[in-house]
Amino acid sequence: MSRNVTILGAGLVGSLLAIILRKRGHDVTLYERRPDMRAAHMSAGKSINLAMSARGWKALDLAGLRAEMEPIAIPMYGRYLHQPDGQTAFQPYSKNNEAIYSVSRGELNKKLMTLAEENGVNIHFEHRCTQVDVPNNALRLAHNGEEHVVTTDLLFGADGAFSALRASYTHMDRVNSSQHYLEYGYKELAILPGANGEWLMEKNALHIWPRGKYMMIALPNTDGTFTCTMFMPFEGEVSFSKLQTEADVHKLFDEQFADAKALMPTLIHDFFANPTSSLITTHIFPWHYKDRSALIGDAAHAIVPFYGQGMNAGFEDCTVLSGLMDRHGDDWATILPAYERLRKPNGDAVASLALTNFVEMRDKVADPRFLQRKKIEKELGTRYPHQFISVYEMVSFSHIPYSTAIQCIQAQDRLLEQVMAEGDFFDNIAHDSFCDRIGHWVADYHKAVQQLDFG
Amino acid sequence: MSRNVTILGAGLVGSLLAIILRKRGHDVTLYERRPDMRAAHMSAGKSINLAMSARGWKALDLAGLRAEMEPIAIPMYGRYLHQPDGQTAFQPYSKNNEAIYSVSRGELNKKLMTLAEENGVNIHFEHRCTQVDVPNNALRLAHNGEEHVVTTDLLFGADGAFSALRASYTHMDRVNSSQHYLEYGYKELAILPGANGEWLMEKNALHIWPRGKYMMIALPNTDGTFTCTMFMPFEGEVSFSKLQTEADVHKLFDEQFADAKALMPTLIHDFFANPTSSLITTHIFPWHYKDRSALIGDAAHAIVPFYGQGMNAGFEDCTVLSGLMDRHGDDWATILPAYERLRKPNGDAVASLALTNFVEMRDKVADPRFLQRKKIEKELGTRYPHQFISVYEMVSFSHIPYSTAIQCIQAQDRLLEQVMAEGDFFDNIAHDSFCDRIGHWVADYHKAVQQLDFG
Repeated sequence: MSRNVTILGAGLVGSLLAIILRKRGHDVTLYERRPDMRAAHMSAGKSINLAMSARGWKALDLAGLRAEMEPIAIPMYGRYLHQPDGQTAFQPYSKNNEAIYSVSRGELNKKLMTLAEENGVNIHFEHRCTQVDVPNNALRLAHNGEEHVVTTDLLFGADGAFSALRASYTHMDRVNSSQHYLEYGYKELAILPGANGEWLMEKNALHIWPRGKYMMIALPNTDGTFTCTMFMPFEGEVSFSKLQTEADVHKLFDEQFADAKALMPTLIHDFFANPTSSLITTHIFPWHYKDRSALIGDAAHAIVPFYGQGMNAGFEDCTVLSGLMDRHGDDWATILPAYERLRKPNGDAVASLALTNFVEMRDKVADPRFLQRKKIEKELGTRYPHQFISVYEMVSFSHIPYSTAIQCIQAQDRLLEQVMAEGDFFDNIAHDSFCDRIGHWVADYHKAVQQLDFG
Repeated sequence: MSRNVTILGAGLVGSLLAIILRKRGHDVTLYERRPDMRAAHMSAGKSINLAMSARGWKALDLAGLRAEMEPIAIPMYGRYLHQPDGQTAFQPYSKNNEAIYSVSRGELNKKLMTLAEENGVNIHFEHRCTQVDVPNNALRLAHNGEEHVVTTDLLFGADGAFSALRASYTHMDRVNSSQHYLEYGYKELAILPGANGEWLMEKNALHIWPRGKYMMIALPNTDGTFTCTMFMPFEGEVSFSKLQTEADVHKLFDEQFADAKALMPTLIHDFFANPTSSLITTHIFPWHYKDRSALIGDAAHAIVPFYGQGMNAGFEDCTVLSGLMDRHGDDWATILPAYERLRKPNGDAVASLALTNFVEMRDKVADPRFLQRKKIEKELGTRYPHQFISVYEMVSFSHIPYSTAIQCIQAQDRLLEQVMAEGDFFDNIAHDSFCDRIGHWVADYHKAVQQLDFG
């Protein structure tokens, strides 16, 4: 039976979900707060490039968009570290030469919207949902200064961290929720191309300038530019509040980011023209109401961007929902609770992984011991390909549930501590007795991991 | 300089705050969502009696209400435990015969409202604040189906867990917030008086029927009744969801609450007529906006009722604010940040204490080892009155900050474990060497506690 389905938010997740539902024959209407980005001038200066990884690609397959996206997705095979003195180091993400992909959020979103419309989805722009009567699935929509109410059979809130459906859920009895901001803000900056449009740094990497309490990253774009993002505390010794004058910005970049600064002719303009934005993590439970409505993507689990998993997690929500439709057809009284049961622990896990990765990126990656550990992880993965997969690989290059990956962290830390306590790994590895011991430890680790639920 | 002050909520905290501000010469207007409870029929079946303790009385002194409240406040000197087999035990709250006081929420609220009006406060009933424009201190108020906007110099949100000012704060950038419901609900029941209006159980105690995963409590009223409250999981083996028929309720009470049931002729009616209500804990930060507005009482820190500290904590907010007005006059740009700095850690601490005390009340108080510990605590307090005060006494019978009291828990647990590991305390105490050792331990404990901030 085809349903009248309404989706709030025509962002990445809402547009993809619309395509998936439309392909199953439902009537799908999308309401989007903003104007049509395909017509309007894109507001720049407040977007972090997407890092598309396995979970994202899998969902694009569902929409049939992989072939169209691949040519404009730039593979990044590892982290490219920049020290204050100009020294650099490359740290591959995987033992198998796997990559995460730099993708333009705007381009991907436009393609998804167009594909949704081509499939028969109605998108209403500049329609802001102000309130949802949850038990009755009645939406109050503001458009051109007037409000009207529409009702729907089935409703999805794909309307981001400040979702109207999420807000309406929180006013109901026994709905738990939280919103927590980092003490850090971020600001978008730019590295420009060379005279012939060429990339002026290694194109196929995610660049990081780790500085302990703050950091800058840069992701490549197809036009030869890099989008840089500076993450820094709002207040404190080195902070956005301390960068008030052009001289302040020059001084910081001269001292800490000299190699990048040489490639940033628009630095001062960008720094003062672009906003300083905040970073939020949200939790909510439940994620659904009976067989009537559910939250998806950031509306269910807004996370910080440091694992590059926000879009990937939202797209995986769509993949899981699609799988449940395969199994349960149109039985939404079964699908929605099952979706919540499968995805809520993963939303919590990816939120936690993202927060933890910030510390790794801004601080630990500059630590020689950490770099050594990463090399050992790669070697272990090569020697024991079926028994040892790093947590980073689980998250970025597999479909192992986030909640399983996060449970491996402790055991993996213990394993690496054991190995590293024995002294220099790459010397020791020449000795059979050392290899034997490692073999046992890895086998023990593998046994422990196998107890976990791999979804 | 007198200010135009608006307070949202004419509950206990809002009414008391209005009196305090009015006495300092400010123009004070109160908006209350509900009808005037002094005229309307009180909605019963959804209130837990108040347990007034030191912090509450101190704030009533500020309003000059102690003398009027004392005759209608019933002292409770300890917990009166009821086991399933009918056995009982009494557990005093303090070594000094101190009490917490059972007070009718409705009576206290009415007196506070009347006193506020007598002092010149304007109370507007049935005015619901739907939204606050925080930077402009502009309130949208709904009354008789129409909305109007008023602005004010200074605004306080004393409008409870679901505060309109709190909600408007949460929509601002970098405001952290959470709401978390217990998996437990509560239902009000009643124990009726004897034929001559007499109390049919010990009047001067807080009665508890601890049953591990659930419990009932009863507090005395001046009319010979006791207000009972059943706390029980919503779902699970013994839960509200399992109590569907009269037979279900009879069976549970026959097996677990036989002594109380004999005094509850209206049990079945009450059980099915009264609602099952939920229990929420909320956090938010910040608590204030510039020199314009602040949250107070449950609006800043809604907590569960298991330490009897909700009203006491809200009243202490008023006491602290009053002290800051003494010191800083009308300098709200100093007062509001100082209020937040002083009270936020205490709001967090009392929220945590209240959650922890639930486990103690429903489960631990039935444990003989726990009862033994309480006796030892009392004896230690008698022997070392200046060095040993129990955490319960700090919370209920002192003005030591909640955040300090909570920091004593671990040290106190360690001390009692040391003492109890030596075998039977009341045998050992006859030996000088044991007393010496205890003396040293208590002195060590006292030294550790003195490092803490006593506000």
